[in-house]
Amino acid sequence: MNKIFEVVKNIKKPDYAVASKTQEVLDNLTKPKGSLGELEEIAKKVAVITGIVKPKIAKKFVFVLAADHGIAEENVSLYPQEVTKQMVYNFLAGGAAINVFAKYTNSEIFVVDTGVKHKFDFGKEIPLNFVDKKINFGTKNFLKENAMSYDEAVKSVISGIEIIESLISKFEKKNDEVFLVTVGDMGIGNTTTASVITAIITGAVVEDVVGRGTGITDEMYKNKVEVVKKTLQKYKFDLNNPLDVISKVGGFEIATAVGMFLACAMYRIPIVLDGFITTSAALIASCFSCSVIDYMFAGHLSYEKGHKVQLEFLGLKPILNLNMRLGEGTGGCLAMCIIELACKVLNEMSTFDHAGVSREIKI
Amino acid sequence: MNKIFEVVKNIKKPDYAVASKTQEVLDNLTKPKGSLGELEEIAKKVAVITGIVKPKIAKKFVFVLAADHGIAEENVSLYPQEVTKQMVYNFLAGGAAINVFAKYTNSEIFVVDTGVKHKFDFGKEIPLNFVDKKINFGTKNFLKENAMSYDEAVKSVISGIEIIESLISKFEKKNDEVFLVTVGDMGIGNTTTASVITAIITGAVVEDVVGRGTGITDEMYKNKVEVVKKTLQKYKFDLNNPLDVISKVGGFEIATAVGMFLACAMYRIPIVLDGFITTSAALIASCFSCSVIDYMFAGHLSYEKGHKVQLEFLGLKPILNLNMRLGEGTGGCLAMCIIELACKVLNEMSTFDHAGVSREIKI
Repeated sequence: MNKIFEVVKNIKKPDYAVASKTQEVLDNLTKPKGSLGELEEIAKKVAVITGIVKPKIAKKFVFVLAADHGIAEENVSLYPQEVTKQMVYNFLAGGAAINVFAKYTNSEIFVVDTGVKHKFDFGKEIPLNFVDKKINFGTKNFLKENAMSYDEAVKSVISGIEIIESLISKFEKKNDEVFLVTVGDMGIGNTTTASVITAIITGAVVEDVVGRGTGITDEMYKNKVEVVKKTLQKYKFDLNNPLDVISKVGGFEIATAVGMFLACAMYRIPIVLDGFITTSAALIASCFSCSVIDYMFAGHLSYEKGHKVQLEFLGLKPILNLNMRLGEGTGGCLAMCIIELACKVLNEMSTFDHAGVSREIKI
Repeated sequence: MNKIFEVVKNIKKPDYAVASKTQEVLDNLTKPKGSLGELEEIAKKVAVITGIVKPKIAKKFVFVLAADHGIAEENVSLYPQEVTKQMVYNFLAGGAAINVFAKYTNSEIFVVDTGVKHKFDFGKEIPLNFVDKKINFGTKNFLKENAMSYDEAVKSVISGIEIIESLISKFEKKNDEVFLVTVGDMGIGNTTTASVITAIITGAVVEDVVGRGTGITDEMYKNKVEVVKKTLQKYKFDLNNPLDVISKVGGFEIATAVGMFLACAMYRIPIVLDGFITTSAALIASCFSCSVIDYMFAGHLSYEKGHKVQLEFLGLKPILNLNMRLGEGTGGCLAMCIIELACKVLNEMSTFDHAGVSREIKI
């Protein structure tokens, strides 16, 4: 508990003054001023977050957080709950979409069991990129009882902080280098959990934050809306205490992501949001400290309805808009490339003077 | 001349029937159906264009076509005309934005002199990625006379066809592999030329197709609009003969791009459009054969106003929207990555059966 507040206390506003220095660098490169549009804004934001005028990307990380949700028993998903654990094995075998994305973009991928309803027993051959941060075997059905205990919520957020601290201690980087982190999710039923969180924090109408998830039918959709409405009626959430929200509805992957985001902000690591699930963690993180938002990029806009509501609430503009709705970190992973490219532009392009290119005519 | 019509005659409608086979492959991969959104549409489009159910990208090419425009003397750009040749040297030295983009995305870059007002003399050390396809030393000022002769227009389009034919003969690929080609531009004054072309072909209002280019002032903008209006009044364009349009307003890079697009369509090579200049070439190519459009991806939406008008006319939806307005092929180059990733998904993900992942529950 103290650990969480220690981190939150140490989240500072980023270094806005760096932006003008980075803009000066950009304006000396052989291109019309501002002609790289969002790429220039992205480069400046990485500079502001890290305090480095010309940041370079040392390494890109994708963390796929897996967990099960008790609410899955309410018929809210097209897939059986076993798919969560099956997909964890698929991630570890390299066969899922995020594996293809991570390989193509040269990102390091870690698969984290934050609360899957399955005991992973690899014997002596634990996969190198498997991280055991299991808090419990799935959450409880929040339509019947709290998803997890308050203590579990605390532990879960702390384990997210630990993931980032271990990343910092394990991977080296130079002074002008930075890490990029995106967090993806896997958990049958988790769009229902995320819908509840989004409704609570943004105050949006339920119908605007409940989407089709994996692609449910009209009838299932109606049921899903009902489940969310009943949950909002059942509980009184204490918005001044985000841990209260987490403990009541979950999930373990969302809570762990919250801890990761808080730690990233404290350690000035740019966060690249993926889709609806991890952005609901971003909403919770912003309740701990609104400064966290300044450390975030919206990787993409998901097709899942409520994502737009979330990003508008956070005031973040998505880098990509490809109608994706898969999760796993796919959107965030692809966006990390564009962020890396923006930093390459800053570091690798010639200046007008060096290239012998005439500047614009003064009027 | 015969060469051009030979190519146009051989442009066929792509193989739409392949789409359903590729969709079947996609639906067997371990993800909810359709959850990769545009990426799935992109993979299917590559399949349809090439006739290959599971296409792989063998190589990605960026051609930066440079040329000068006589209209530059009408005070339509912020930069002096010398910048065209200076930027060619910059491309060859590796210092421009497109060099950083091409390197990062692992694309092969070629710099083509299609009509720069400068004699490039490299002595015996001609850079390996420099292509000499010069037709003349810049176009004439079309406010005073035709930009080029009809014969030059023909030659220019043919030289574009030759570029693609030489690419096919030089680079090997396997049967299930395809090339991706994007075409960028460099030419001071060329947004004015492109504005005229766009107004002629789409019939849009002049103010909707004239943008700020490199970032001109209000006064210069008014002048640029006037230049375009006067040009439209001065000439009677024969829309049934795209070569007439080219010879009257140019430019050499646009004409060469037209030839490249026609050849790509004939040889079933996916074309990735960049910005306003090369999309004006796409408009002209579509006048030769509207089937060409089916072989095109819109790489991005440029900040340059008229690009939206062009893409809407062609019925193409941009992959990226990053407010870029640099040209050089930057938007197209970045988009090629997303197309390549879409094909990787198709080829590298596990199927439900292979990964032992449960399919959706039948209702």
